[in-house]
Order: sequence, then structure tokens, then C-alpha cells
Amino acid sequence: MAIILGDNRYGKAENRIVRIFRDESRHEIRDLNVSTALRGDFAAAHLVGDQSNVLPTDTQKQTAYAFAKQKPLGTIESYGLDLARHFVDDVPPVTGARVEIEEYAWERVRVGGVEADHTWVRRGQEVRTASITVEGSGDDRRTWVTGGLKDLVILKSTGSEFHGFLVDRYTVLQPTTDRIMATSLVAKWRFAHAEVDWDAAYAGIRRILVEQYATVQSLALQQTLYEMGRAVLEAYDEVVEVRLSAPNKHHFLYDLSPFGIENPGEVFHADDRPYGLIQASVLRDDAPDPGPAWDAYTGLV
Amino acid sequence: MAIILGDNRYGKAENRIVRIFRDESRHEIRDLNVSTALRGDFAAAHLVGDQSNVLPTDTQKQTAYAFAKQKPLGTIESYGLDLARHFVDDVPPVTGARVEIEEYAWERVRVGGVEADHTWVRRGQEVRTASITVEGSGDDRRTWVTGGLKDLVILKSTGSEFHGFLVDRYTVLQPTTDRIMATSLVAKWRFAHAEVDWDAAYAGIRRILVEQYATVQSLALQQTLYEMGRAVLEAYDEVVEVRLSAPNKHHFLYDLSPFGIENPGEVFHADDRPYGLIQASVLRDDAPDPGPAWDAYTGLV
Amino acid sequence: MAIILGDNRYGKAENRIVRIFRDESRHEIRDLNVSTALRGDFAAAHLVGDQSNVLPTDTQKQTAYAFAKQKPLGTIESYGLDLARHFVDDVPPVTGARVEIEEYAWERVRVGGVEADHTWVRRGQEVRTASITVEGSGDDRRTWVTGGLKDLVILKSTGSEFHGFLVDRYTVLQPTTDRIMATSLVAKWRFAHAEVDWDAAYAGIRRILVEQYATVQSLALQQTLYEMGRAVLEAYDEVVEVRLSAPNKHHFLYDLSPFGIENPGEVFHADDRPYGLIQASVLRDDAPDPGPAWDAYTGLV
Amino acid sequence: MAIILGDNRYGKAENRIVRIFRDESRHEIRDLNVSTALRGDFAAAHLVGDQSNVLPTDTQKQTAYAFAKQKPLGTIESYGLDLARHFVDDVPPVTGARVEIEEYAWERVRVGGVEADHTWVRRGQEVRTASITVEGSGDDRRTWVTGGLKDLVILKSTGSEFHGFLVDRYTVLQPTTDRIMATSLVAKWRFAHAEVDWDAAYAGIRRILVEQYATVQSLALQQTLYEMGRAVLEAYDEVVEVRLSAPNKHHFLYDLSPFGIENPGEVFHADDRPYGLIQASVLRDDAPDPGPAWDAYTGLV
Repeated sequence: MAIILGDNRYGKAENRIVRIFRDESRHEIRDLNVSTALRGDFAAAHLVGDQSNVLPTDTQKQTAYAFAKQKPLGTIESYGLDLARHFVDDVPPVTGARVEIEEYAWERVRVGGVEADHTWVRRGQEVRTASITVEGSGDDRRTWVTGGLKDLVILKSTGSEFHGFLVDRYTVLQPTTDRIMATSLVAKWRFAHAEVDWDAAYAGIRRILVEQYATVQSLALQQTLYEMGRAVLEAYDEVVEVRLSAPNKHHFLYDLSPFGIENPGEVFHADDRPYGLIQASVLRDDAPDPGPAWDAYTGLV
Repeated sequence: MAIILGDNRYGKAENRIVRIFRDESRHEIRDLNVSTALRGDFAAAHLVGDQSNVLPTDTQKQTAYAFAKQKPLGTIESYGLDLARHFVDDVPPVTGARVEIEEYAWERVRVGGVEADHTWVRRGQEVRTASITVEGSGDDRRTWVTGGLKDLVILKSTGSEFHGFLVDRYTVLQPTTDRIMATSLVAKWRFAHAEVDWDAAYAGIRRILVEQYATVQSLALQQTLYEMGRAVLEAYDEVVEVRLSAPNKHHFLYDLSPFGIENPGEVFHADDRPYGLIQASVLRDDAPDPGPAWDAYTGLV
Repeated sequence: MAIILGDNRYGKAENRIVRIFRDESRHEIRDLNVSTALRGDFAAAHLVGDQSNVLPTDTQKQTAYAFAKQKPLGTIESYGLDLARHFVDDVPPVTGARVEIEEYAWERVRVGGVEADHTWVRRGQEVRTASITVEGSGDDRRTWVTGGLKDLVILKSTGSEFHGFLVDRYTVLQPTTDRIMATSLVAKWRFAHAEVDWDAAYAGIRRILVEQYATVQSLALQQTLYEMGRAVLEAYDEVVEVRLSAPNKHHFLYDLSPFGIENPGEVFHADDRPYGLIQASVLRDDAPDPGPAWDAYTGLV
Repeated sequence: MAIILGDNRYGKAENRIVRIFRDESRHEIRDLNVSTALRGDFAAAHLVGDQSNVLPTDTQKQTAYAFAKQKPLGTIESYGLDLARHFVDDVPPVTGARVEIEEYAWERVRVGGVEADHTWVRRGQEVRTASITVEGSGDDRRTWVTGGLKDLVILKSTGSEFHGFLVDRYTVLQPTTDRIMATSLVAKWRFAHAEVDWDAAYAGIRRILVEQYATVQSLALQQTLYEMGRAVLEAYDEVVEVRLSAPNKHHFLYDLSPFGIENPGEVFHADDRPYGLIQASVLRDDAPDPGPAWDAYTGLV
């Protein structure tokens, strides 16, 4: 009954890389949070402290910043693919690389009604996310890409019901046919391959998620999530699975009756905790095995 | 040499009030974080635990929610005035009230290119703020209103210099004629009176702040802030003072020279801490004394 | 090529339950953050909005608070087992339950050198964690329990080296034989069964983790983590696997040479981001399959 | 009616300085968050972008790190005094300096029951704070020092009442003679002069605050705060004023009656928002004018 080293990886998390494109008088900006992790034969580092196979996390950082200049950096997915392939292909002990990226959106400010060339404010709350996992070389090369978003805070003031639920001895909740439904959505979608127009896919999927949230008459957050995932899969052949995690951010109708005031769905208390938390996957029945696609490196707290 | 009770106040902080207006088929939403604080003769509560003059913080909360329905709630400034005046006028021991409000902006989602009637996503990062202070009754009534914003994350990729500064034995900084300048702006403006078109003032002042940030060729963040405040005061007669607090969110040019890569203002590291922090007030030379206008109740951490 | 519902679960996250035991004049306190999630046949809720199989998340909340009184609540592991078993055994559509708990530690204050009976301050930064997963009934019943801790901020000012690492064209890091090593540890350990003295195991495992961190001459954080896991497994037969995730919280020696000041390991800058992030599992070679033990419900951001 | 520059200052905030003392085999650690701000004749920087009077914030940072080695750094108060005096005395345009410091406490881990020489874990949640303000030179030199703490999370499970309060039409709160009282205390104390045993004062004042919280039979949080401040002033001649800001972190008794379960003060829900917020100053009637002592530079969000 021996004690052994199990699964392991290491890298540099949260490199805050800002890339300005200034070839034209009108600058462009990309604002990234890049994390890299490597797998490979690192047993000696763990067992006897031998670093000869270990590319320092500092080097991973340097590489991430260097690639922000050396590579096109058109999208976070393409940049992540460049970075992950480099580690697997160019660093001998590395057999697999995972790159996770968050992108913060900026919008140009307007001056006298005209978009400024060099000045932006942060746009929205939501963060675009991607993960790229590359394993093996040559014929054994395998690649998984997921896109996603998080912190998309969305609310509908009607069109949400919740009734007909199971009742047990601890159930005091009253059914409702009209409530606020709000969430801070985390959505991730898994691509079938890496030949994708990443920006177009992101924009289109985000639009579908939001439209479904707005238009589905919700009988439960579960149903809304399913319809969101389903619609994405119907629209994008290159997506094989959508995973959704949605806190039900409760807005409780405030009881104004002690003051003789009616409150027909107008004044709410937005509560912090606890919150419902619904998680679901929607996928094609012939979706390939996800492998390590969903195996998050950062973000666990 | 006696020990005495000094300045004191108490209230309920961070009431998360969401108000839906649903008289029309197209709903409206206001999403507020409301804090109230009362001053008055509360010495007995402190000295001997006698609560007979103390309106509970719970009551302040109930009142804030009730007023969200009973009062027009057109703007946070007008709602705050209603609430503060109520406490001073209707609760005998109360001689002064402070209401501080944050408002979170939402924007309608689009479905098929058309704005939805009942669904929104959180807009931007910035938060609109206001404080209302009311003291005294009848002829002694005095009122102070400040508007503001916070968390306005803004960045310019050129048009910022910093050179010609004082050098001492601890100075290693190199002068620059072109850098990124970024901040997360906190701005507050003090009104001369309470007869203001609050929403118009907010929109106009925000626009001026952003335009000045974008267009002033900056020789220092200090200069930019001054020009922002000055322009607001020139445009709005009803504003007598602007206070600005701006972290200089450093974006350091990344050194790629060890890899033989030139980096002419393209790849930056966005650092977290430390950060420069510039604070300035710009005001009219005949501005009235601010009294308690700037005496923040919440927000200190 | 149909679209189908994949893995799904739902529950109530972050119930902030505080339990006071006041049978004796000397009170006891347990301060918990409880999340529950259910699996089962909830396809109808997703596909057609039929809630007849859905026990509301509100009911899960009520149950968690009720059990805080009805059950002994001796440890978070035993309380979580009671709760998870109840959902699987007493709610027909539920086939599996996951309970995740954080516990915040308090220590009694001293008054005149003597421990107070009713007053505490929060102790330390670290949080004790546990997850309980129960699936199936009768002979098919399976149970997985993990214990853990997070946010254990630990630092050693010497006894840490890093050299002999792999060098590529992006490597600029200099080797060192003496550095600060600091982390904010997340550790989780998987139990072989549920017949454990939970409090004793927690205290003992925490002690071992800390002692190993302090005493192992570290050639890399990887090595330190391995030695921590190994020592736990050697001491506790009932533990079959230890998972560790450790940010390398960099403390950079500050360059004071421009000022003619030597700095032999005395003044450091504690940097925020990026940080190294090392993750490893240490386990018995005959450890049973983890099943859903590591499949976290909450905590992803 | 001209527009003028009002009050202004600038500096470097949140320098995360860690100082290791390694002259003995048993190391010592001080872990600081240091912010500095300067006042003086900086009008030209604001009005015309002339930096010739402006010592860069980067220089302030370098100085803070250099002083961590050059100066004794016995306490945060003495270190802050050294730093503030340097800026005023050695940088000609500077007429006033403010230094604000947070200190994070560490405690030695034990190995085999014995304290380790080089390894610590973060102790507690609370943060020690200090502010040092120095203005003028020579005979005009004035100095203000405040000490303090924040984030001291303290709870008592009995010995707290709240009744006999003012009732108006919005009052629904029920009086109670036994409740949980919990807060996350912010306390600051102003010293009469700068000839103080800073560490002894901190330890003693913290002890008094905690003991008063524990032992005063509380009729309101107001009363508890007053008794805390009063006791500090009675014990420490060198303290002239104590300011306290205390959120009333509500613990609501959970209603278990729908389930036929009695709950006599045993199961509570710890709510996040809103919270009561009580602020009070306790001072000597002959306390000198506070001047800029309370004029916080950082910490406003």
C-alpha cells in the first residue's frame, strides 16, 4: 500500500496583460487575464525536489507577455492556442498545457458625439472567458477549446413563474405566477474543433443566451437554462455542449402591508445570501467525450 | 477633565431596494443601495441605554422601502430628499438626517434588434451616487445635496506625459512623454441648492468628465483632474464644487528586450498595488461653506 | 443528432447558519455556511417546466436550518451526512445529494485573563471545509466525505530554495537558495469511509500540514506539497487522498541598491498578481475511485 | 466668480511591504500596507501641468521601502513618523505629509509543541491601523497620531437587549431582552502626543475594547460603544479621543415554528445586508482640536 503522486499541474495564474494596437491613429485595446498550467513528467520535482524538468512559472509569464506581441492576438481563443501549442511543442517535458483567459471589454468614449481614438471605459460587467487544452504531439495531438462568459447580470421583471413543485414537511414556499427572475450567469460552451470564427461565435452565442432569457416564459430557472443551451446548439454546429451555472438572485417582494400600502410587484428587496444555484449541461447526443475540457485550473475559491 | 460623548449618528446601511414600475407594458427599473443616518439628541442611548429617543434602524429600513412606493422615486436625489426631510420633520428627536444612495444602471436587452420590455442587463461598471443632508426645521432648515459617480474605469492609450518632476535621492523614475493613463474615478459634485434637474445634471456632468479625460493632453493626472472639475463648474451654474479621487492604475510597459522583441508602447502589465492616488477639489471662490456635505457615513473600509 | 439534457443539479447555496448551544452557562457557537444540491430525475423541470419532482431550494434552506436544531450538529461532517441522507431517503425523486459546508472558527475572548462564557472573536483566516455526497438507497447506498481547509495563509522566511530548473529562451529567472515562500493553502482530503472522529482528524491533519510546511527544506513548492500530503496519509489510515492547491504568493526582494542600501533578505514587496499556482494530488495506490467526491458544487467564480 | 483649486494631496497608496528581521536565528516579521500622501504648493501641477514641485509617487514608494531597512521599524507609528517627517523636512515643496498604515498580524506555528523560528500563519482577522500627520517645520511643526484597528469581528450570544425605543408608523420591530450582538469593529484613537509606547498602547486598548464588549450588559450598541471608548480614555492618559464605527451584523432568530420546532435562541440566520451602522466619538472635554487627524486618505470606496 504505497503512497503515490497523483494528478498534478502547475503554472502562472492571472497575468494581467494589456495589449494596445497602435499601428493606426485609431488604437485598439485588448485587456486580458491569462493563466497557464502545464502537465508532464514532473514527478521528480515533487518527490525529490529535482527541477530539471520544470519550466519556471516565471518563464510561463514571460512567454505569455512575449506572445502578446509576437503573435497576432486576434482573439483570446487563437492566442491561447498559440500559447498552449508552444508549451507542448517546444518544452520537452511538457505533455499537456491548459490556458485559461478572461477578457474585459472596453468601449470607446464619445467626444462631441464622435468615438474617441484612444480612450475607453470598461463596458458592462460580464467577462468573456476561454479555456484551451492541448495534449500530445504529432498524430496524438488533441485540442479542446471552450468559450464562455461570466458575471452576466440579467433580470426580468415578469414572465417568470414557479408553482406545482414538490411539497414536503419543510416546505413553506408559496407558489407564484409572476416574480422577478435574476441571475449572474456563468456559461461555457465546448467547441467540436478549433477552426472557428471565435469573435462571431462569441457575439452570436451571447445574443442567443440573452434573447432566450428574455423571451422564454419561465416556469423555472431550470427550464430557462435548458432553452438557452438548446438554442445555442441549434444555431452553432461547431458547439457540442453548453454548461450553465446560474445563481437565482432572489428579489423578495417587500411586505408593506403593515403600513397599509399595497405592493403589487413593485418594491423588492434584493437579497445576498442564500441563493438558489442551478447547474445544467445541454449537449448533442453524439458529443465527443469532453476529456479535460471542463477541468478548471483557476477560479476555485 | 470629564469624558464626554462627541459626534454620533446611527442608521441602516445598504438597503438593497429594487423598484419596478409596471404601469405601462414597458416596465422601468431602479436599483438602489440606500443608507440612512440620523443625528439628534441620542445622548441617553449612549450614556444610560435609554432608547426612548431612538427610532430603530429597522424602522429606518421600513421607511426606505415604504417610500420607494409612496414617493415618486424619480431620481435618487429627489427620493433621498423625501426620505431625509421625513426623518427630520416627522421624528421629533431627529435634528439631522443623512441619506446616501448608490444607483446601479441597467440597460434593456435587445431581442431581434428591438428593446425588450421587461429584461435588462447591468450596464457598465460605474455607480451613480448621491448624498442628501438635511438639518433643522422651519427657518433653520438647511439642505446639502451632492451627486457623484464611482468605479468609472477609464483608460487612454496615449496623450499622457509625466516629466520635469522633482528629483531627490530616492527618485529612480524615468520621465515619459507617452504612457497609458488609467483610473477608476470617484467624483462628487456639490450643488448650490436642491432645485435641479438631477438626471440631466448627472448625464451632462458625466459626459464632461469623460470628454475632458479623453481630450486634455495630460502632463499629470493632477492636471487632468483639475480640467475635469473646471469644465463641470463652467457648464453647471448649480454646481459649486467638484471633488475628485483618482487612483493612478499603473500600466507598466513590459520589458521584452531579453527576448529580442521591441515593445514600443504595445504590451503592458496592469499592476494592482501600489497605485498612485490623487485627490483634488475644484470649486468656485464664492462657494458656500460645505458644512456636513462631504461627511461620508458609509463607504469607509 | 438530438439535443439532450446532460448532468444537472440544483440547490440552495450559502445558508449562513449560526448555532448557539446554551444548555450550559458557558455557551458554544458553530458558524456555518451550508450549501445543498440535489440530483435525480429532474428532466421534466428542464424540458417542459414541470416542477412536480422539484423540491424547492427554499425547502432545502428550511431543512438546513431545521436540522441545525433537530440534529446534534456535533461536526460539519456529521451534520452534512444527516442532511444529505435525509434528502436521498425522504424525498422520492432525489437519487443523490451533495452538501458543502464551510465553518468559521471563533475563539473566546478573555476578560481579566479568564475565558468569557458568551463572547468570541473570529479566529484566524482559515476556513474549515467539508463535502458530503450521498447516492442511492439500501444496498446501493454510497457515501463520500471530504474534509479540508482553505485560506490558510502561511509564510516561511527561509528554508526555501528554487534552482536547477529548465531554461528556455523565455527564461530570465535567477536561481535562489533562500527565499520567502508563502501561500494561501487550499487542502482537501478524502476519507475512506464515514466512521471517523471528524474533529480529531481535522485538528491532526491541519497540524501535520503546518508542521511539514515549516520543517521541510523546500526545493520547490511542489516538493513541499507532496511532503504535506504524504505525511497526512501516513498518519491517518482513514484518509485515502489529499489534494492541495497552493498559490505561490510572491514576495520579491526589493531592489534598494540605487540608494546604496544593502538588502540581504530583509525588505520584500508582497505582490498580488500574477502568482504561481501549484496543484497536486497525493494518494494511496489502492485508493478507491473518487466518484463524485471532488465534483465541487459551489466556489467556482 | 473664479474657479479655483481647493484642497489637494497626492501619494502612493498600498505599498505592501514585508520586513523580515533575521539578525537572530529566530526571525521576526512585520507585514505592512503603507500609504503616503503629500500636501504643499502643487498648484502649478494642477493648473498648468508643471511638475517641478512634484515628488513622484514612485519616489514616495521607493522611500517607504528604503525606510523599512534604514529605520528601526519598531512599530507602525514610529515608522510612519520617520517617513512623514522626512517628506516634510527633506522635500522643500512639501508642507504636510500623511502616512496611513495597516499591519497584518502573524503568529508562529508550532512544531512538536515548540514555536517555529521562521514560519508563521496569519493571525486573526483584525488589522492594526495607524495614521500619522505631520505639518510645518521648526516651531510650527505639528504632529497628529492615531492608532486603531479594523475588522475585529466580535459576537456575544447573550447580554444584549433592545427595547423601549421610539415607535412611529413605520415601526414593526419587536423589543427583545436577549439577542445576539455582533459587529466588525472599526476603532481609532487619537493620541495627545507622539511620546507613546505604541505597542503597549495598542495591546492595552484592544484588550479594553474587547473586555467592555464582553462584559457590558448592552441596552443598545450605542451604549456598548460609549462604554468601550470611555474605558479606553480612563485607562490611557495619552489618548484624547476614541472614534468607533460598528455595523450591527444582524443575526435573526430563525422561525422554525412551521415545523413544530422550538427555537429558544439557538438557530440564527446571519444576514449580510442591510446592517445597522452606529458611529460615535468619545473624548475628553479638553481634547485639543483634531485638525487633520481624522481626514482619511485611503479606504473610501
